[in-house]
Amino acid sequence: MRIIGIDPGLQRLGWGVIESHGSRLKHIGNGVLRSGDGPLGVRLARLYHELTDVVARFAPDGAAVESTFVNKDAAGTLKLGQARGVAMLVPALAGLDVGEYAPNAVKKAVVGVGHAEKHQVEHMIRLQFPGVTLANADATDALAIALCHLRHSQANHRLNAAILRAKG
Amino acid sequence: MRIIGIDPGLQRLGWGVIESHGSRLKHIGNGVLRSGDGPLGVRLARLYHELTDVVARFAPDGAAVESTFVNKDAAGTLKLGQARGVAMLVPALAGLDVGEYAPNAVKKAVVGVGHAEKHQVEHMIRLQFPGVTLANADATDALAIALCHLRHSQANHRLNAAILRAKG
Repeated sequence: MRIIGIDPGLQRLGWGVIESHGSRLKHIGNGVLRSGDGPLGVRLARLYHELTDVVARFAPDGAAVESTFVNKDAAGTLKLGQARGVAMLVPALAGLDVGEYAPNAVKKAVVGVGHAEKHQVEHMIRLQFPGVTLANADATDALAIALCHLRHSQANHRLNAAILRAKG
Repeated sequence: MRIIGIDPGLQRLGWGVIESHGSRLKHIGNGVLRSGDGPLGVRLARLYHELTDVVARFAPDGAAVESTFVNKDAAGTLKLGQARGVAMLVPALAGLDVGEYAPNAVKKAVVGVGHAEKHQVEHMIRLQFPGVTLANADATDALAIALCHLRHSQANHRLNAAILRAKG
């Protein structure tokens, strides 16, 4: 099973793709997309095209996006929302289910506790995928989101299997 | 010149298309798109497909979107932002410039004052386009946004023409 995780932002959008083979995990790719300068519509279109390319190139089976609302002000939250709209749209247009996880759920799945620090998340990602070059902090977060989604999916899968066995 | 105005929202997205022939204005169409039920990605994809159809059907020369951030809470602003991301993206993907106007600018362009009430905006839209059936309040707002964009574009056009004459 191959999962793309997305950490959305208008300036920088992080992405990370991982794959599970039974209990083994493999890093497939990670990177960061930049919307650059210009009018908002043009910047969103740039994110759309580049993220569409990433999804087409890596052909994941599922996607997950972090559901933060940050932060300071309504204007910042609206900007984030616009980038997040594109981040949810692109995998949905590719026919993928898109999971949403709060930052605490991601930290809990990756580090084991919901109140973990950012550097602990990065440490666990480096342990999980030794030798992998991480594009930046957004790409690292995106890998963490993908890992969170994979663990939730595997837990659901085991639960469903157990229910089927119990039903006999 | 044909303009599409868009009043974005996740549940209901209003759209309205108008056309100018010299100083005459013509209503071309208006309506409301609903994202329906389901996961967020699926709802955004529905808005994307339907708005793409509207833009393809009416082939506007320009687009404008209202830049509200509402309201009460960060979660609501994030939701609005996601729908607004799709509303800005679709005309940008069609190669259109997308204008952004604050609610006060729209009211000022349509009614003449920035602090006008909603029903005054509707009244002016009905006067401007007599006999037209308005799909709902979001579609009415979308026509007002289109009208605002057209007036700003015409004012810019006249200004540029005057500058060219003065240089000439």
